[in-house]
Formats: sequence, structure tokens, C-alpha cells
Amino acid sequence: MTDILDVQPLIKSSFARFGQVLETEGAEKRLINAGTCTRFHALCSVNIEGEGARVVVNLFRAEPIQFPVRLAMMERHPLGSQAFWPLSGGTWLVAVAPDENWRPGTPLIFSANGSQGVCYAPNVWHHPLMALDKTSDFLVIDRDGLGINLEEKQYEIPYAVAVR
Amino acid sequence: MTDILDVQPLIKSSFARFGQVLETEGAEKRLINAGTCTRFHALCSVNIEGEGARVVVNLFRAEPIQFPVRLAMMERHPLGSQAFWPLSGGTWLVAVAPDENWRPGTPLIFSANGSQGVCYAPNVWHHPLMALDKTSDFLVIDRDGLGINLEEKQYEIPYAVAVR
Repeated sequence: MTDILDVQPLIKSSFARFGQVLETEGAEKRLINAGTCTRFHALCSVNIEGEGARVVVNLFRAEPIQFPVRLAMMERHPLGSQAFWPLSGGTWLVAVAPDENWRPGTPLIFSANGSQGVCYAPNVWHHPLMALDKTSDFLVIDRDGLGINLEEKQYEIPYAVAVR
Repeated sequence: MTDILDVQPLIKSSFARFGQVLETEGAEKRLINAGTCTRFHALCSVNIEGEGARVVVNLFRAEPIQFPVRLAMMERHPLGSQAFWPLSGGTWLVAVAPDENWRPGTPLIFSANGSQGVCYAPNVWHHPLMALDKTSDFLVIDRDGLGINLEEKQYEIPYAVAVR
């Protein structure tokens, strides 16, 4: 039987074990450029390892997810963190899962607003991008380089998400 | 006498000696997530060096520049590149300069649209953020860590910019 998962708001404390929430609220503020600019410092850190690795900035253009929402597959990146920042406004969904014997456990679903990003820590199971309503752009900062940095696992029974 | 500098559109070939232009046009496209997402891959690379260095993602909130525009000071970061992506839409200005005996030479001024970012290569002289018209947010990816990563130099005579 398919489990139906609730959606919770994206807050730092709930997400901490999976990575970092990128948001200005609560961030360290530094006044720079002769006081004309506020730097919200280090919303996240993008950490990489492995041969020939570098940090790259990419743009992801994602089609909106289809309803009803089903989570059938999770992925993770062993060699680097991956940060997402929404560029098209509006709510988007973030799904992560604890690891259980090298497989993703039951997902947690978060609702992020249009001014919140996330950075998945290395090796954290997460669902591919879930934009709502419209094709949406995201700035993505992650690792490029040699080595296998993608692992995917299917759930035996997909999870349903209680959204809308 | 104050020199008046023209503004040119931001195009990759003109900017190449100073860093990278971040834009989807001309970028490598990879279809990912079962075909539901296009990854415009590696719009830029953020390279860092030095002890305890890490790549961080920040948000800069910049007041708009005042008119008439005067360029009085340039800065550079010896230990890392610095990437800017506009989040508030609209045109913004980018000023860079070749190095001349450890000082910034005559600036080049570029007009970037709201879907163009830049990544300054390490040690490239550039002007602090120049948003137009309104307070504007930028996502900034750069180096955090020990060591002196900021150098600033004043121009003896500020440059005027022919904008508006």
C-alpha cells in the first residue's frame, strides 16, 4: 500500500541533518562596498573531493512535476554537495531521505518558498528537482570532475505526497 | 580631465580575458532527470586556493548606483574567482580593468541583462556591484578562508560612465 507523506515547511532545524537551507533570515550580515551592499555571508558551503574536481555554476531548467506527486526514485552525490537556488519565484518541493543500509529510507518532504534554496550535503539522498506549476529555473552550484558522483535508487513502492 | 567611458553589451568574447559570462545561450545542454530538466552545464568554474579555503554561496543586496556614474575604485581577489548572478531582473553594469603594474588600468564597462551573470577570474580588477534603478539581489559564489583575498586601488582621477 502506498504511504502518503505530508509536506512540512522548510526550516533550518528540520533540514540540518541533510544539508543547509539557503536564506537571508538568520544569516550573518556584513556591510560591504562602502556601506552600499549587504553581504549575507556563506548561506552554504559547497564542498567537493576527488581527482580533477572543481566547483561549477549551472542553470537547471525544470519542467513542473505532475500531479498527483509520486516519489519513485532518489539520488545522491558521494563526491560533493549540491546547492540549488530558485530563480523563477514561487513554492517548490524538496524531498530528502536518511540512508538505510545504502538505500534511501522514508522521505521527508519540505515546501520551500521562492527565496529559499537548499544545499544537499555529500551523499544525502534527495529527489530530483520538483518545481510546481511552471517551468522553473534554478541556479545550481555543484561538483564537476572525474569519478562516479551519482547514485540512484528506486523505491519498491513509490510514496505519494499530500500536496494540493 | 575626467575621461568618459562608453558602455558595451556583455558578450563572451569581449569579456573572456577577465573571466566568464554566465548565460544559457551557447552553454552545453544536458538533458537530465528522465528528460524533465535541462542542465546548462558549467556556466562558470569557481576556483580557489590557499589555506582553509572553501567555496561559499552568498546573497548580496546592493543599493542602486547613483547618477552620474563615477568609477573611483577597483578591487580584486587574488585567491579565488567570484561569480555573480542577478536575482532581481533588469540591466546591471559590470566594470573590469586590465592590470598595469599592480594597478587597475582604464576600465571597460559592460551592460549585463537580467539573465546574465559574470565570474571574475582570480586577480582581475573589477568595480563593486553596480545595480541600476532599485535595490537588487545577487547570488554570489566565491571563496571563504584564511589569507588576504581583497586588494583595493583608487583611481587618481575617477572615470565617468556614459549611461542614460
